[in-house]
Amino acid sequence: MPWKRKHLLDIESLSPAELLTVLDTARAFKAVGERAIKKVPALRGKTVVNLFVEPSTRTRISFELAAQRLTADVVNFSAEASSLKKGETLKDTARNLEALNADIIIIRHSATGAPHFLSRFLNASVINAGDGAHEHPTQALLDTFTIRERKGRIDGLNVTILGDILYSRVARSNIWALTKLGAKVTLCGPPTLVPREFEKMNCRVTYNVEEAIRDADIINLLRIQHERQRKTMFPSLAEYSSLFGLTKARMERTKPDVLIMHPGPINRGVEIDSDVADGSRSVILEQVTNGLAVRMAVLFLVNGGKGPSEVAAT
Amino acid sequence: MPWKRKHLLDIESLSPAELLTVLDTARAFKAVGERAIKKVPALRGKTVVNLFVEPSTRTRISFELAAQRLTADVVNFSAEASSLKKGETLKDTARNLEALNADIIIIRHSATGAPHFLSRFLNASVINAGDGAHEHPTQALLDTFTIRERKGRIDGLNVTILGDILYSRVARSNIWALTKLGAKVTLCGPPTLVPREFEKMNCRVTYNVEEAIRDADIINLLRIQHERQRKTMFPSLAEYSSLFGLTKARMERTKPDVLIMHPGPINRGVEIDSDVADGSRSVILEQVTNGLAVRMAVLFLVNGGKGPSEVAAT
Amino acid sequence: MPWKRKHLLDIESLSPAELLTVLDTARAFKAVGERAIKKVPALRGKTVVNLFVEPSTRTRISFELAAQRLTADVVNFSAEASSLKKGETLKDTARNLEALNADIIIIRHSATGAPHFLSRFLNASVINAGDGAHEHPTQALLDTFTIRERKGRIDGLNVTILGDILYSRVARSNIWALTKLGAKVTLCGPPTLVPREFEKMNCRVTYNVEEAIRDADIINLLRIQHERQRKTMFPSLAEYSSLFGLTKARMERTKPDVLIMHPGPINRGVEIDSDVADGSRSVILEQVTNGLAVRMAVLFLVNGGKGPSEVAAT
Repeated sequence: MPWKRKHLLDIESLSPAELLTVLDTARAFKAVGERAIKKVPALRGKTVVNLFVEPSTRTRISFELAAQRLTADVVNFSAEASSLKKGETLKDTARNLEALNADIIIIRHSATGAPHFLSRFLNASVINAGDGAHEHPTQALLDTFTIRERKGRIDGLNVTILGDILYSRVARSNIWALTKLGAKVTLCGPPTLVPREFEKMNCRVTYNVEEAIRDADIINLLRIQHERQRKTMFPSLAEYSSLFGLTKARMERTKPDVLIMHPGPINRGVEIDSDVADGSRSVILEQVTNGLAVRMAVLFLVNGGKGPSEVAAT
Repeated sequence: MPWKRKHLLDIESLSPAELLTVLDTARAFKAVGERAIKKVPALRGKTVVNLFVEPSTRTRISFELAAQRLTADVVNFSAEASSLKKGETLKDTARNLEALNADIIIIRHSATGAPHFLSRFLNASVINAGDGAHEHPTQALLDTFTIRERKGRIDGLNVTILGDILYSRVARSNIWALTKLGAKVTLCGPPTLVPREFEKMNCRVTYNVEEAIRDADIINLLRIQHERQRKTMFPSLAEYSSLFGLTKARMERTKPDVLIMHPGPINRGVEIDSDVADGSRSVILEQVTNGLAVRMAVLFLVNGGKGPSEVAAT
Repeated sequence: MPWKRKHLLDIESLSPAELLTVLDTARAFKAVGERAIKKVPALRGKTVVNLFVEPSTRTRISFELAAQRLTADVVNFSAEASSLKKGETLKDTARNLEALNADIIIIRHSATGAPHFLSRFLNASVINAGDGAHEHPTQALLDTFTIRERKGRIDGLNVTILGDILYSRVARSNIWALTKLGAKVTLCGPPTLVPREFEKMNCRVTYNVEEAIRDADIINLLRIQHERQRKTMFPSLAEYSSLFGLTKARMERTKPDVLIMHPGPINRGVEIDSDVADGSRSVILEQVTNGLAVRMAVLFLVNGGKGPSEVAAT
């Protein structure tokens, strides 16, 4: 179905058909990334602003390159040394960026709902690049894209998300995308980080890692954000690793064609062992490559693109 | 008259005819910003450097986008982590940037006269993006552009500038531009921040806000830079607001077609109330949009453009 | 001879013929920098990443402009606020950047061998923009380019490198390039900073500055990095200056056609007096201009360019 939305705020509000339109469009753009000249003129003369109130080099660069490959003009606005530090409200900052004829504003913010808030008063398109612990839609789209590309489908797959679910926008967006497309989602991690209420999102919750990984077609590991984590959530990194880390030994008790995913940056030896991260089942770097294609697709669609059939023509 | 200057250092040295050439050229570029493809090849293959020794995200982005829309290559040089921190002089930094074949160097600096200093030894064009409390010429040009676009003229209008005049480069540049083009300028604010000596610049000085705003066609509010202000200049933000803030009540005692301007970022509830900032008389966001057109015009002109008639051809 | 290398990691491993290929290619690109439109489409649709783990504004900008003039897309990755701060390994960071379809990764790092390390597992081309105290190959290439352009040859020239040799990657790369191309290299500076073991690199070592500069065709001064230097290496900047600084008086005891070089940023009054830095024998700013041409050449060659004859065709 042709895309009609002006913004990409979350996965929750997307229909399965809309999700598939993004994934199909991303597939067309992935082919562009493999050309000798990795550019198309689809957004020529358009202005994209990276409004990163919460810093994130890798997501910012992924969006920046996606915009460049669409031939857009792109500028980076980071919170440090900016008007936000001088007490300007987020609303005023965003309206000022829009007044510079910005066509698309990509926002990362530590507050849940910041992108939705902007979309209510901006004429520019808004893309959520992560809002608090709420959603990170392009991450879920690139994860889903990677699964679909490798497995040929999403429907009916067993996907286990392992780690800090409670504080993870990646987990929430993935749960929405996967369940909408028919996957069976299992959540696992320390009880303090995986509350039972996630069962309301049509997920199975288990605290038994062996059970969580045994039948999984996909294991999506979340980063233990030890620089943010409240100390009381689990005793130590070493204990987390021994209880929930994906080790070589644990890999032997998974399905032979399981895919190992991680949104990065990985903590080697904490949530994932190096042999697993670098092993044949890992698609961690493919996720990064697919992220670029997905972000090109999202920029293209919110700017008025209808779907994959238009990409070939660019 | 055709533009002949290589630099834009201040408003003080410009003739009224030169001011009008910039404004007319900006009008031509504003039309470009409204096209689907907001780019012209006028500066293709030219190199523009943003040398921001004093940080300013919004002015830097405005110049960066202006350069991009002219198809120039643009790089940002900020003082942090740079050779200036290693003890290099500003002169050496600027000469090094010029040696990279820079065609235009845009400088913001906390020292009065820094752009003039650079212009004496550089072959590159120099644009002043704000020097100390001295001048901020592109801000005055965009303010004047906005007034002229809305009112159809500058000559004979009553313009009140309200706030911290003493430390404001925006005020100084505006006073020059407005008086050259025939406006009658009134300055108002706390006596500590609006010394009588501004009367020598052909302005009326008053400490009575009611008198200042009553006959104004334009009220240009300046930002109270509380992060910089010396504490002794006025008792408190609350007191400033009650004495000089533009409230809804005060708006009722202005002309019905008054325009409310502010260079941003605004302090809601301090120098301006939210209903006024967001009200029908406010042109604050138009100023931002016009700033882009004015900066395109200035980049175009210092690079050898003659005037508006050449823009249509690009 | 046609260029065949995928990376530029150091000068040590290059043959004299390869060095000349870079210099000849740079000469062709220098002509591009003098055109009205300073761009060629040679790297259109290619992605260049500046991975600056150790900050350096001027080298980063030089590479950024070089990439832009080749019409590449370029993004900057700096260590601050990045995944490296979150504990990600350099290897993982680099592989993630490569997964974004990066064609060329330019790395500056405080650790010797970091670029070589990356080149062992990346498919992208790697360019060393300075690794610890080891090598800074593009600096040596631009220095050599400048000498050759001014003197018409390298072979048989007396080149004196004066200053902190021990900790200088610029010195090491210059020694390799100059001796490979037949120059006679003299090293001079405080004994603590110029150990005798450099004689194994086919250099003359002397602690007598008069002797070092008397017959020099080139004097290449190194920056005293007083922000890094261990305090015990020499008593004070004033003493360094009186013993080894290039003063007007010392200039009178040099050859009349000596060239004075410095990689910048210069410390006026420390390693070089202002009259010397700004005098007729100084080619310091030419070095900067040539750096851009050399970096365009290097980007062009590691991306598959064969040599200077291909540049004319772009």
